[in-house]
Amino acid sequence: MARLNLGNINPHVVEAKYAVRGELAVKSEEYRARLRNGDKSLPFAEVISANIGNPQQLDQKPITFFRQVLSLLENPKLLEHEDVLLNALAYQKDVLERAKWLLSQCGSVGAYSASAGVPAIKESIAKFLERRDGFPADPAHIYLSAGASSGVNTLLHIICASPTTGVLVPIPQYPLYTASLSLLNSTCVPYYLDEAAQWGTSLAAIKESYNKAKSDGIDTRAIVIINPGNPTGASLSEADIRAVLEFAAEEKLVVLADEVYQTNVFVGQFRSFRQILLTLQREQPGRFDAVELASLHSVSKGMVGECGHRGGYFDLLGFAPEVEEQIYKFVSITLCAPVIGQCLVELMVNPPRPGEPSFELYDREYSAIFGNLRSRAYALYEAFKEMEGVECGEPQGSMYLFPTIHVPPRATEAARAEGRTPDEFYCIRLLEATGVCVVPGSGFGQVEGTLHFRTTFLAPGTEWIGSIKKFHREFFDKYR
Amino acid sequence: MARLNLGNINPHVVEAKYAVRGELAVKSEEYRARLRNGDKSLPFAEVISANIGNPQQLDQKPITFFRQVLSLLENPKLLEHEDVLLNALAYQKDVLERAKWLLSQCGSVGAYSASAGVPAIKESIAKFLERRDGFPADPAHIYLSAGASSGVNTLLHIICASPTTGVLVPIPQYPLYTASLSLLNSTCVPYYLDEAAQWGTSLAAIKESYNKAKSDGIDTRAIVIINPGNPTGASLSEADIRAVLEFAAEEKLVVLADEVYQTNVFVGQFRSFRQILLTLQREQPGRFDAVELASLHSVSKGMVGECGHRGGYFDLLGFAPEVEEQIYKFVSITLCAPVIGQCLVELMVNPPRPGEPSFELYDREYSAIFGNLRSRAYALYEAFKEMEGVECGEPQGSMYLFPTIHVPPRATEAARAEGRTPDEFYCIRLLEATGVCVVPGSGFGQVEGTLHFRTTFLAPGTEWIGSIKKFHREFFDKYR
Repeated sequence: MARLNLGNINPHVVEAKYAVRGELAVKSEEYRARLRNGDKSLPFAEVISANIGNPQQLDQKPITFFRQVLSLLENPKLLEHEDVLLNALAYQKDVLERAKWLLSQCGSVGAYSASAGVPAIKESIAKFLERRDGFPADPAHIYLSAGASSGVNTLLHIICASPTTGVLVPIPQYPLYTASLSLLNSTCVPYYLDEAAQWGTSLAAIKESYNKAKSDGIDTRAIVIINPGNPTGASLSEADIRAVLEFAAEEKLVVLADEVYQTNVFVGQFRSFRQILLTLQREQPGRFDAVELASLHSVSKGMVGECGHRGGYFDLLGFAPEVEEQIYKFVSITLCAPVIGQCLVELMVNPPRPGEPSFELYDREYSAIFGNLRSRAYALYEAFKEMEGVECGEPQGSMYLFPTIHVPPRATEAARAEGRTPDEFYCIRLLEATGVCVVPGSGFGQVEGTLHFRTTFLAPGTEWIGSIKKFHREFFDKYR
Repeated sequence: MARLNLGNINPHVVEAKYAVRGELAVKSEEYRARLRNGDKSLPFAEVISANIGNPQQLDQKPITFFRQVLSLLENPKLLEHEDVLLNALAYQKDVLERAKWLLSQCGSVGAYSASAGVPAIKESIAKFLERRDGFPADPAHIYLSAGASSGVNTLLHIICASPTTGVLVPIPQYPLYTASLSLLNSTCVPYYLDEAAQWGTSLAAIKESYNKAKSDGIDTRAIVIINPGNPTGASLSEADIRAVLEFAAEEKLVVLADEVYQTNVFVGQFRSFRQILLTLQREQPGRFDAVELASLHSVSKGMVGECGHRGGYFDLLGFAPEVEEQIYKFVSITLCAPVIGQCLVELMVNPPRPGEPSFELYDREYSAIFGNLRSRAYALYEAFKEMEGVECGEPQGSMYLFPTIHVPPRATEAARAEGRTPDEFYCIRLLEATGVCVVPGSGFGQVEGTLHFRTTFLAPGTEWIGSIKKFHREFFDKYR
C-alpha cells in the first residue's frame, strides 16, 4: 500500500474541478490515438478538439514575422549569415534587427531573466499600453508570466488569505478561477452574467452575490472579469465596465481583468479596464484613486495563438509597494517566465509597423486569421440558428460560442440513469458520434435549469459543423 | 488606501523566504544597471552573478545541435530550404530529421500539448531512463514540467494536506523547498547534512529529525534529497542512497529525488534513486515495493544549461493510480509545460550518438563545457584553500562550492549593529567591494554557529576569484 491515497493527500487538490481537460478531453485523446493506429471501427475519421482554445492545433498558422525572429533567437549563429537569411531565406532586415536587439537585451534565451521579466520587454509592454489606452504606463508594475494562467495563479496566491476570503467570479467562467480558489482554500463568490443581455455583467447580480457573501461572513476583496468573455464570447460595453469599476471603488474590491481575448472582437471595439479606470480617475479626481487593478494578457489567443509558448504578462495599477514586493518574491520562487515566450510577448505588443519591411506580410497574415475566425464563428452561429432547441447570440468576440440547448425530457432521464448532467450526456454522445469534442456548460457554471455547451470556432472547414447538425437531429429523434 | 496590505494578504506568501533572488540579488542588479549607464563611481567594472546557477548568463554557450533543432521548430518554413540549411548554414541531416520528427509529434510548438507533455517526448524520456538505469520505464508515469521547480510545486501541492504534514528537507537546501512548504502552510522537517562527511546524508540525523517531528504531532510523509547537492555540491554515495531508501521503506516516506545536477559530477559516478530503488526491489522482493519515488530532472543545469527555456520533467514510481489522476488534473490546470522546452528535454535525453552527423561537434562542445566547469571549480577551491578562516571540501559536483567561513569577532559585532547575520554582512561587503554576488549560508540553512556562502563556479576567467581573495584579506584586516 502506497503512503498517498485519495483520502490523505491535499483535499483542496481533490476538490478542484477543471472540466476543459476532463473526462471528455481524455476520451477524445483516446479516440485520436485509436485513429492514428488505424482503428476503422469509429464512426468518424477525425477528432475535432473544439473543447480548448488551441488555434495552432487546428488550422491557424503562426505569423511569419514572429517565428522568423524566434528562430534567430534560438540559433543566433544564423545571424552570421545575413546574406543567406536576406536572400535565400527571405528574412527581412527588420527581422534581423529585432532579433539582434532582443538578444542584446536578454543575452541568451537560455539564461534566466530577471524574475519579473527582461526589463526591455517590460518597457515595450509599457509603450504598448500607452498606445492602446492613451495613458502612460510604468514598466516597474509589469510582470511577465508563463501565459495568463500563471499570472492568475500569482495574483490569487497574494489575494487569498484564508477560507473566508471571497473572490467574485463570473458564471459561466473559465474554470481556472474556481479551480485556483479551490486549491487556495478560499471562497468563490459567483455572480451570474446576463444571458439576455448578450452575457454582459449585471451590476444587480454582482451586488446581490456580494451582499449574500457578506452576510455569510465572507470578506470579498476582489472581482474577476473576463472580457471578451470565456466561455461566453461576450464583449463588454463601456457602460458595463464603468459600472463594475464604480462598484469596485465603493466596496474597495481589487479588479482582476482577464483580457486575453482583447484582439478577438467582432462587434464594437475593445476597451480595457485600465483605460476606463484611468479615464474615471481623470474625470472624478479622488473617487477611483484607491482602486487596485490587475490586467492580464497572453500570446495564447488573438491572432497570435501561440499557446504552446506560454507567454503572458500582467500589469498592476494602485497596488501598495509592500504588496508588490511580495508579488516580486512570489514570482522569483518560480525563477522567471520562459524567455522565448517573453520575447514573443514583445513581438506581439510591438509588431511591424506600416513602412517596415515585414509589415505587409504581417498585416496580410493577421487580417486573414481575423477574417477566418469571424467567418467560422458566423458559419457556426448560422448552424445553431437552424438547430431545434438551440439558442445562440450573435458572435461578439473571443474564440467561443456558448449556445443554450434544450434537450427532450427522455434525454434528461437517460442522463440521470448514467449519473450525468444532461449537458454532459449530450456532449459525450456528440463526441462518440462525430469526434467533435466540446465542453458541457456545467464545466463553466450556468443558471440552474439551463443547459449549454462551449465550442471554439477554430476548426477549419464546415464538415464538422454539418456533423454536429446531423448528430443533433438524430439525438432529438431518439429521445423525443 | 489600497485594499491589500502586508497585514491582510496571504500570510503564507509573506512568510516564505527565497534568498537566491533576495536583497543581494536586487542590489547586484542595481549595480549592473549603474555600470550599464556609465556610472564610474563603483570600485568594480563588472557584476559577477555567482549567486545563481545561470550558465548562459555567464560564459556557457548553448550546444549547437540543440539550438539548430529549436530554430527549425520555431520556423518550420526553413525546412523548405534543405539545400540552404545543409550547405550554406552547415546544418546536418540529423538536425533536419529530428526537427521534422518533433514537429510531426507536437504539430506546432505554438499549440498546447497534452497536459502531461507530448506523448512521444515522454517515450524518449522513458528510453533514456532505461539506458541510464538499466530498468525499463513507463511513459505513462512521466510528466513534463516548466523546469524542475514547477515539478516540485506540483508534487508538494499533492503531498501537503495540512499544517501538520511534514516533509524532511536537507539543511542546507535550495530554498525552493522551504518556500514552497511555507506557501502550502505545511511543516518543513529539517535534517542536517554532514559537512564532515563531504555533505553526505546522515541517517542518524534524518531519524532524529523524523522522531522529533513525530513527537511534535507532525505527520512526516516525504523526504527531499538533492543529489548532487545544492548548495553543497555533494555527490551522494550509493550507500547513502540505500540508507535513505531503507528508511523510506520502513517509515513509508515518499521520496522526492531532485537530480537536476545529475551530469554535473566530478568525483565518482551519478547513481539515480530510481536505479537503486529498482535494484533494491529486485534484491529484496517485497520490502521496497510500496516506496513512492518522484525523480526530477531539468534542462537548466548540466552541460545543457538552458534555464531560460523552463524545461523539465518528473517521473513517478509506486504512486497510486488515484493519486496520479489528481496529479494529472493539477498539471492540466496550468495547461502544459512550454512546448519548446519540452522539445529541448527530448534533445537532452536523446542527443546525437556516435556515427551520427552531429555527434562530433556535440561531443566536443559537451566535453569542453564539462572540462571548463571542473577547472573553474578547482581554481576556486584552490583560492579558498589559501584564504584565512575559510574551509572548503574538494569539488564533487553540481555548480556550487559552499565554503565555511570564520569571521573575526569584530565583524560579528558590526553585523549585529546592522541587524544582519555575519554571513549576510560578509556577502554584502563582498558585493560592494568587488561586484561579486554570492548567497549567504543563512539563505539555505546551516548548523547554528557556523557560517558559509554559496558561489557558483560558472563565471569565466580568474580575475573575479582574485578580487574575492583581495576583499577577504582586507575584510580580515579591517575587523581583526
